[in-house]
Amino acid sequence: MDIKGVAKATTKTLISYLTYEAMRIVAMQLDQTNPPLAHWLRGFSSTGKLQDGDTYLQEMLQSKQEVAFRLMTVRQHLAQEISEFLPEMLRSEMEQSNTKLRCAHLDRLVNTTADNVPEWDKLDQE
Amino acid sequence: MDIKGVAKATTKTLISYLTYEAMRIVAMQLDQTNPPLAHWLRGFSSTGKLQDGDTYLQEMLQSKQEVAFRLMTVRQHLAQEISEFLPEMLRSEMEQSNTKLRCAHLDRLVNTTADNVPEWDKLDQE
Repeated sequence: MDIKGVAKATTKTLISYLTYEAMRIVAMQLDQTNPPLAHWLRGFSSTGKLQDGDTYLQEMLQSKQEVAFRLMTVRQHLAQEISEFLPEMLRSEMEQSNTKLRCAHLDRLVNTTADNVPEWDKLDQE
Repeated sequence: MDIKGVAKATTKTLISYLTYEAMRIVAMQLDQTNPPLAHWLRGFSSTGKLQDGDTYLQEMLQSKQEVAFRLMTVRQHLAQEISEFLPEMLRSEMEQSNTKLRCAHLDRLVNTTADNVPEWDKLDQE
């Protein structure tokens, strides 16, 4: 398993995701201070461009550089703030998620088996 | 800024992303040991279901539980392995990414300005 490659690709995904979160935060701030700009930002961000955060910002720098700079500041701040919780949250949420899926599946299996008990067996139990 | 909310949402995105990476790894392993199953796995995973890793696995548990269990084991292993590098990689890649965008933008501005120097200025410089 190419763990280093996975870590690198995961970091890229994380950066794009935090660019999206930064966009949501800045749009909410602009709702208070400059609604037309908030509207512009949501419009600019709605066409799936945010799949790649860097390409998205590169394009934005060419039309509204002040908004792009603000997004870059906010996404870097988010990265600083969350990175210390991230390992512990990832490990524990992943474990919980797997446990929940396994339990729900076992539960379903047991209930399906119970439903399939032949009629005469059910009669015996009565 | 709701940092805790962002951290929680980021973890959920990470879990889905690692489910996708686990699928790629298991599909490559199955290419060697059970090609028809590798083919099935890629087909099952190609319809955008992987946007939500848990819903994807829940569905898979109902058709091929052994593959779903394997994916769960691999994604948990990936989470364990990469979580210790993640904070440092995220912080440094984010900084690099922002610096690169800022430099490219400044570079473009400077070059555009140079192109816009009036003709008589250019003549003076000759």
